[in-house]
Amino acid sequence: MKFDVTPIAFVDSCYKEKFATPRQPGIVSEAKGIIALIPPFNDPESVFGLEDCSHIWLQFIFHQCIDKGWKARVRPPRLGGNKKMGVFATRATHRPNAIGMSVVKLDRIETHTNEVLLHVSGLDLIDGTPVIDIKPYVPYSDAIEHAHYPFAQQAPQPMPVYFSIKAETALKTNAHLKKLIDQVLSQDPRPAFHKIDETRVYGAKLEDKNVTWIYKLVNNTCVIEVKNVEPA
Amino acid sequence: MKFDVTPIAFVDSCYKEKFATPRQPGIVSEAKGIIALIPPFNDPESVFGLEDCSHIWLQFIFHQCIDKGWKARVRPPRLGGNKKMGVFATRATHRPNAIGMSVVKLDRIETHTNEVLLHVSGLDLIDGTPVIDIKPYVPYSDAIEHAHYPFAQQAPQPMPVYFSIKAETALKTNAHLKKLIDQVLSQDPRPAFHKIDETRVYGAKLEDKNVTWIYKLVNNTCVIEVKNVEPA
Repeated sequence: MKFDVTPIAFVDSCYKEKFATPRQPGIVSEAKGIIALIPPFNDPESVFGLEDCSHIWLQFIFHQCIDKGWKARVRPPRLGGNKKMGVFATRATHRPNAIGMSVVKLDRIETHTNEVLLHVSGLDLIDGTPVIDIKPYVPYSDAIEHAHYPFAQQAPQPMPVYFSIKAETALKTNAHLKKLIDQVLSQDPRPAFHKIDETRVYGAKLEDKNVTWIYKLVNNTCVIEVKNVEPA
Repeated sequence: MKFDVTPIAFVDSCYKEKFATPRQPGIVSEAKGIIALIPPFNDPESVFGLEDCSHIWLQFIFHQCIDKGWKARVRPPRLGGNKKMGVFATRATHRPNAIGMSVVKLDRIETHTNEVLLHVSGLDLIDGTPVIDIKPYVPYSDAIEHAHYPFAQQAPQPMPVYFSIKAETALKTNAHLKKLIDQVLSQDPRPAFHKIDETRVYGAKLEDKNVTWIYKLVNNTCVIEVKNVEPA
């Protein structure tokens, strides 16, 4: 028994590659994106009333993982990468059906004839992600106050981020991008098994910029220094 | 562009038909069910760690609606059936991809060799529903306290339910079923456009029983009287 699903929209995201894309929505509030409905779903009627909702669920395809199959046990990065969990006890991207769900803030809806653009923030989806459904967030049913998830009780502790003088200069006229970089890197996007190597340069494309950074051990605390921000 | 999804489990539910199945999870706490994983997903390893989670998301197929297509505007029953909303502003079952999501309480997990049964409650899924994914509920990310959904700010007001003497007698030794019937009927499963007709008898199959009931106007309030509870 199989069911077909078809994209109804694609994501235009500030995250251009998997590395440095956050693992949960909502943490990087500065992460903006646009959900652009495609034909025949690009009818403004299909989102009538949605503008009054503060948050929406996106159901989407982990399109960069879909061909890699699944395993009964996975190593979630939040557990340091050395504890194996059942795939259904995690939100891992490699799962039997490569479907994800993310709740994001709906900032505004832009409609023209045959064009529906949902402007969202708090996004954790990579550019080009196919969206298969959009549903309103219904607090009385979705916000379960006393629910218990033992493996991540709260958002990860942010890591301090410092900007080099060169990076500060490059970002002087773009406070939004600086805040985005700060929020993204403070989540520590490194694979959990990487040890601190002060000479190793990391890089990721955010919006239309290449951002590079290094990790430093300072007073026994790891800090991130943003080295360069160059046009992509 | 199309993606295949395949069931990983099927629901064994107390709701045997669409009519009287609640429109949201969590409201009928007495609604019990079992999510039974099917091969090759029926490996106890796949749910390792899940037993410590209080709630789970089920992603599933609206299998009884899938062939009926979708429309850009729908009439949600919660709005009295006379207001049309964009399909993506609702959780309507008839949507471009007939995928639903429900958060339910995970009571316990029963595993044997090649058998994984998730016992859940607060279910709003009909018997035989194909489940395509199971994910843990992660409160810090899923429970958005200040989210706003203007069309249903809170759970619907329950309607008073009375049991006829015959129904009381039939339920004397089954307090759980009585509570289930009470919770299900107090949601008023009637189509919104039905007017009170004291002679009309409604019926639905719950667990292994046929339940029949009528609506009465008493002191300008509608009450439900459960007439009969007979073996199905």
